[in-house]
Amino acid sequence: MSNAASTPFVRNAWYVAATPGEIDDKPLGRTICGERIVFYRGDDGRVAALEDFCPHRGAPLSLGRVVEGKLVCGYHGLEMGCDGKTIAMPGQRVRGFPAIRSFPVIEKHGFVWVWTGDPAQASEDELPHLHWADDPEWAYGGGLYHVKADYRLMIDNLMDLTHETYVHATSIGQPEIDETPCKTTVEGDSAVTSRFMNDIPAPPFWRMAMRAHGLPDDQKVDRWQICRYTPPSHVMIEVGVALAGHGGYEAPKDKKVYSIVVDFITPETETSMWYFWGMARNFRAQDKALTAQIREGQGKIFAEDLEMLERQQANLTRWPERRLLMLNIDAGGVQARKVIDKLVATEQAAQPAAA
Amino acid sequence: MSNAASTPFVRNAWYVAATPGEIDDKPLGRTICGERIVFYRGDDGRVAALEDFCPHRGAPLSLGRVVEGKLVCGYHGLEMGCDGKTIAMPGQRVRGFPAIRSFPVIEKHGFVWVWTGDPAQASEDELPHLHWADDPEWAYGGGLYHVKADYRLMIDNLMDLTHETYVHATSIGQPEIDETPCKTTVEGDSAVTSRFMNDIPAPPFWRMAMRAHGLPDDQKVDRWQICRYTPPSHVMIEVGVALAGHGGYEAPKDKKVYSIVVDFITPETETSMWYFWGMARNFRAQDKALTAQIREGQGKIFAEDLEMLERQQANLTRWPERRLLMLNIDAGGVQARKVIDKLVATEQAAQPAAA
Amino acid sequence: MSNAASTPFVRNAWYVAATPGEIDDKPLGRTICGERIVFYRGDDGRVAALEDFCPHRGAPLSLGRVVEGKLVCGYHGLEMGCDGKTIAMPGQRVRGFPAIRSFPVIEKHGFVWVWTGDPAQASEDELPHLHWADDPEWAYGGGLYHVKADYRLMIDNLMDLTHETYVHATSIGQPEIDETPCKTTVEGDSAVTSRFMNDIPAPPFWRMAMRAHGLPDDQKVDRWQICRYTPPSHVMIEVGVALAGHGGYEAPKDKKVYSIVVDFITPETETSMWYFWGMARNFRAQDKALTAQIREGQGKIFAEDLEMLERQQANLTRWPERRLLMLNIDAGGVQARKVIDKLVATEQAAQPAAA
Repeated sequence: MSNAASTPFVRNAWYVAATPGEIDDKPLGRTICGERIVFYRGDDGRVAALEDFCPHRGAPLSLGRVVEGKLVCGYHGLEMGCDGKTIAMPGQRVRGFPAIRSFPVIEKHGFVWVWTGDPAQASEDELPHLHWADDPEWAYGGGLYHVKADYRLMIDNLMDLTHETYVHATSIGQPEIDETPCKTTVEGDSAVTSRFMNDIPAPPFWRMAMRAHGLPDDQKVDRWQICRYTPPSHVMIEVGVALAGHGGYEAPKDKKVYSIVVDFITPETETSMWYFWGMARNFRAQDKALTAQIREGQGKIFAEDLEMLERQQANLTRWPERRLLMLNIDAGGVQARKVIDKLVATEQAAQPAAA
Repeated sequence: MSNAASTPFVRNAWYVAATPGEIDDKPLGRTICGERIVFYRGDDGRVAALEDFCPHRGAPLSLGRVVEGKLVCGYHGLEMGCDGKTIAMPGQRVRGFPAIRSFPVIEKHGFVWVWTGDPAQASEDELPHLHWADDPEWAYGGGLYHVKADYRLMIDNLMDLTHETYVHATSIGQPEIDETPCKTTVEGDSAVTSRFMNDIPAPPFWRMAMRAHGLPDDQKVDRWQICRYTPPSHVMIEVGVALAGHGGYEAPKDKKVYSIVVDFITPETETSMWYFWGMARNFRAQDKALTAQIREGQGKIFAEDLEMLERQQANLTRWPERRLLMLNIDAGGVQARKVIDKLVATEQAAQPAAA
Repeated sequence: MSNAASTPFVRNAWYVAATPGEIDDKPLGRTICGERIVFYRGDDGRVAALEDFCPHRGAPLSLGRVVEGKLVCGYHGLEMGCDGKTIAMPGQRVRGFPAIRSFPVIEKHGFVWVWTGDPAQASEDELPHLHWADDPEWAYGGGLYHVKADYRLMIDNLMDLTHETYVHATSIGQPEIDETPCKTTVEGDSAVTSRFMNDIPAPPFWRMAMRAHGLPDDQKVDRWQICRYTPPSHVMIEVGVALAGHGGYEAPKDKKVYSIVVDFITPETETSMWYFWGMARNFRAQDKALTAQIREGQGKIFAEDLEMLERQQANLTRWPERRLLMLNIDAGGVQARKVIDKLVATEQAAQPAAA
């Protein structure tokens, strides 16, 4: 699975691997883009990412312990350094031990990011800028789902929100979504699908948000959804409602409520993914109870997609030769796949030929 | 799995797919002869059967809803017709959408029947006639088991009832079964194995039935078992006991108690099946408590076969080259397999050559 | 899996298949070295071992019953003899039935031993002599674990006890183990790795044993571990502690406490094993409560290895091409693998060429 030439993964990119709290005093083992990786905190508290394979006898290092910033194998006590080189082992000279692979890793914006491609190309500048992450006027809450489906099915899902009408009928879905055309544009490697619905009733989730924001929840609204894909597989969705007739997306702050749906989709294998979902909002940012309430509601809504995607994957595996339709509503996902295909092709062309 | 040429399934035949109660207001997804099929009730309440694959993005239609007789995909709202042609989809022109396969399906005799072969050959005339199904003097009760074994192992099982002595020792088994020779005859595509045991004690199940029928349960009986295989994989077994010396199978009605063991064996995959089992009886037909009691007893008895068949399948998979014995007691299953092989060969000869 | 040429199993050897209590009035089905075998007690109470495959229709004989020393198939009543030849079957002449394979089997020293190689070479003389097994001055307690890993990983584990410091830190591990060099010697087909640690504190398990033996548990001790591998995959470990300065392993009986860790490692498949573990001791041999207490403690300790070995196996399967290190601490396992490789090569050279 580590043969980049046969996988549909963009490699020279930062993927969200974990949330900081997942990597505490115990190491965390997680497969990212087909690579088994152990994450832990070194001496200075900085996260390190290594192949999860002890060079002594192949035990997973993630079963070990972290002692004074060194990763100690739980089998025979080999001490591993953050660079993949063995530091010490009781009774042994370790100079000739083979190194294991280390992966560039950064902790920033409330996430741990990992790079499984060419380390020489890994630059912090390539990290997405999450303006809300360190802004006290914004609050963020989110979670993690493991989904047994090709990660690109989740991109499709998020770039085409007409599914809300059917999958999320009781929370954010409403018939007006699929009655309103959407528009997809491409800007470089980014794809944007947007939909603006005017003078419609607000669905339950937004009525709650309006009440939380001090707005009346029984009036017609203008609603927007602006889905933005950026490589490798991040989807940020600006969503919101304004009291009808005040300018919609452009309405003054006291007439609207809005937030950003945050989706970091990280391939685990070719048919499974880690799905980091969340919501960033800039109203009542200090209200932790509201953060928890929104997080719980969003968690329930997003869980509704999982069975659909996993069963869709099973169908595609069963009928591999079938062509799918590419309608206007699918344009966002289609454009995202084109970007992925282009980046993968570029990376493969740059690879030395395998023996 | 849909390549008929490589599967041992007779295709131009009606298989039981479900009982009517399984297809209510929700669609039912079920794999039959390797085909993933969604069953639902259209506008007129008639059952429809379609490929379980939305032509839009491959979602399983069985996760959808039935709205006014139309099957609505649960992902993006595509409305599918009973003929496999898309009726509508919000915001889309659907005329060019590819059709999905629809399967001939009939609801009759208390079962839903499906045909996975050439639709042009599907005729209601080919349905087995179940004389007891609509006769108020008869009652029927039954159930469904999923069994991880080649469906032909169940035909073998039912066409050779000597196994009752060993597998069902405490209910319907008795040593007299395997001490009494059976006789197999072939009539066209049907095979019949019969055994008549005279002047023997009745086993527990039949003593119960005799009491229910008002007969003494402590007297010797004449017992019969007439197993009839008909294609593709239906086995009906006439079973009964008469007070000894009154003519056995031909005894007058007030001296005997009898019923029909009903077995519809439907392949799911090459190594799994849907097993619809039941019993039709013509004594105390209105006694629903008795129907429930017999159903529960039969369910327990037939469950005793499942582990044996699944472990037999595992052994055959492990030792694929081993030849099995074909004794006289196996003649019913052997003849049934000959019929299946002949029908499959005929169907394959009629197929256009694959590319 | 029965193709000896492709498996890493020594075949001409006695493996522990079961403990006598596992084979009571019901047959026991168990896979040994890739062979599905049914074990049962024949007429004279002697254990028999046969292929778990009824020659009639392939049902597993282990689902059957033992009636007067004959193994009766649970499906159609075929009666199988201890030699693999069918004795009888209701209503059938069985003379022409194909025989199934029978395996040499011996019950001795508290274990049932089976031989999956050439029966002509199976001799009771080849059984390991367990001097403690029938000696009233010794007591034995043990158990069985199923482990999803190559059986050779368990040999490695037991021939290198430095892992105790990390895996069994709270019971028998202590830093002095991996601070003290070990020494491996080879004697014919046997490999011995020994380690002697002087003037060290006793770890919790041994403090318990010292108290049980009437020795003070708060004094420094001399500790020893002598791991002895013999083919095919038996590891006996002499372990003990003596009050420091009294001669260690050679100390007088009233100054030391010692026992033998007994490990019979039996391959199930290429990546799974049956692990029979136990301890034989010659102090307070009649104290059954102590036997139970030690057995429970040892069971907990040995369970700590299982996840490590199973995850190590998963890593090796994932990275099959990786070379492992062979350090001095690994010498016992390395030498044992050399013996296994030599014996397998010898057996394969002696095999007639396959068609």
